[in-house]
Amino acid sequence: MKLIRTGPAGRETPAVLLDEGRAVAVGELLDDYTPRWLAEDGLQRLAEELPGRLDRLPSFDPSTTRLGPPLARPGKIVCVGLNYREHAKEAGAEIPAEPILFMKAPDTVVGPDDVVLIPPGSEATDYEVELAVVIGRTARYLADDADPLAHVAGYAISDDVSERVFQMERGGQWDKGKNCETFNPLGPWLVTADEVPEPQALDLRLAVNGEVRQDSSTSDMIFPVAELVRYISQFMPLYPGDIINTGTPQGVGAGFDPPRFVRPGDEVTVAISGLGAQRGRFERALVEGDER
Amino acid sequence: MKLIRTGPAGRETPAVLLDEGRAVAVGELLDDYTPRWLAEDGLQRLAEELPGRLDRLPSFDPSTTRLGPPLARPGKIVCVGLNYREHAKEAGAEIPAEPILFMKAPDTVVGPDDVVLIPPGSEATDYEVELAVVIGRTARYLADDADPLAHVAGYAISDDVSERVFQMERGGQWDKGKNCETFNPLGPWLVTADEVPEPQALDLRLAVNGEVRQDSSTSDMIFPVAELVRYISQFMPLYPGDIINTGTPQGVGAGFDPPRFVRPGDEVTVAISGLGAQRGRFERALVEGDER
Repeated sequence: MKLIRTGPAGRETPAVLLDEGRAVAVGELLDDYTPRWLAEDGLQRLAEELPGRLDRLPSFDPSTTRLGPPLARPGKIVCVGLNYREHAKEAGAEIPAEPILFMKAPDTVVGPDDVVLIPPGSEATDYEVELAVVIGRTARYLADDADPLAHVAGYAISDDVSERVFQMERGGQWDKGKNCETFNPLGPWLVTADEVPEPQALDLRLAVNGEVRQDSSTSDMIFPVAELVRYISQFMPLYPGDIINTGTPQGVGAGFDPPRFVRPGDEVTVAISGLGAQRGRFERALVEGDER
Repeated sequence: MKLIRTGPAGRETPAVLLDEGRAVAVGELLDDYTPRWLAEDGLQRLAEELPGRLDRLPSFDPSTTRLGPPLARPGKIVCVGLNYREHAKEAGAEIPAEPILFMKAPDTVVGPDDVVLIPPGSEATDYEVELAVVIGRTARYLADDADPLAHVAGYAISDDVSERVFQMERGGQWDKGKNCETFNPLGPWLVTADEVPEPQALDLRLAVNGEVRQDSSTSDMIFPVAELVRYISQFMPLYPGDIINTGTPQGVGAGFDPPRFVRPGDEVTVAISGLGAQRGRFERALVEGDER
């Protein structure tokens, strides 16, 4: 299934995208796609109930409405740094011996096509296409013989927007450049794991104003999804509704010489095979007293 | 006011601690102390309604019940590193030129006296008494002439439990050693800001099995609370229910030679003047197949 949420920010309602490009509203079947809904086997119930209800549920054309993030109030967002071989090279970094982890606050999440705000004074706002993994079942200290992918509910596109000066030159921990408001467009779809049998064979692509900057495959990941779930679970439990941003491939703005950061008015399109596409605009954040 | 939440984990109910050491349950007046309740001026309404209702609300002795964290489902937790002069010295670090920020997931928060779990394989689990600042009003790009403390709802004790090997030797970002389950005992009380007129004149103390290890004052902070709120708001908005862990003074286990980390069975007591005291036990986390 492809789960979507449509409507004004903060008041989205759940729907399922059908293959024909139509969507059916499922507000009669559930309140919203929340971590708790995932924890209470909501996905399985929806998959069972939907076929018999399909004819009687309201259908609509989702291209006419705003899309919200496909998960309401996500849990924690664990991000993986330097997880693509070619990206580690462009960053001038060693191939990490084990995954590098940092955190993004859930309040950074916005819809896939929402405006991303460039913070006041920022000169180094950058994009990062990433495969987002949504956890469906608690993963805690997984054993070597466990099946980590059995803990995955599904996948989505994440843009791990980053301010490179804040991240690298303002105190030593990356989080400062990763947690600005609107810095995590998510979606458009939450695609259930059964429809993504090969998470390590997905094409990722990101373009700025139509010019392709990132064009890679999840096959270039240093630590694949299954290993990330197992690894992270040794340090912190992953709960239903938690998200892993699995790292970005080469082609980030900071990787160019000179760097090519995002400017106000830029349109950033992001796509991963089977997971849909984002089309967002970047604008300067306004503070009190500003005029656009 | 001193807000507390009592009852089994996940099913706590709100109460107010009275000066006499009794508490009154306020479940008739509000659902719970949540970020949304703070955002909707819950504190002000409670302060107005409570005096007239005091005689008719059920009162109880809070020492007979489990205390939960005094805030339900906190927002993001922004932590400040190396924010005490003497602690920076013991860590062999420079005095930071600006605050070092990292993140702790809200799912790490437990009650003030709950068991803290030492992760499997950990040999370097450490304590950190900290003044926690609970945000009451959104702080976003605060101007230099703004009053940052007007955005603070209140204060609490936080133990920013840390695994030093995970933090420092497993990939470069501190978050990996800061986000283990149960790693943020919070409370016992959320003390409203009006009762803490001098947040830079609070004594902090932490003892392990009765032996004092940390004994300092918030006057040793490099960046005081007001400056932290203003500073952080330049990078990420602080929303009602967000928490700032403002850093720890000298005396952490890692600061001793040889280091003195927490062992299973250790009792850790934590106190800050006016904010009450924590008394928690550390135990090894069990994984499937373990026997205690």
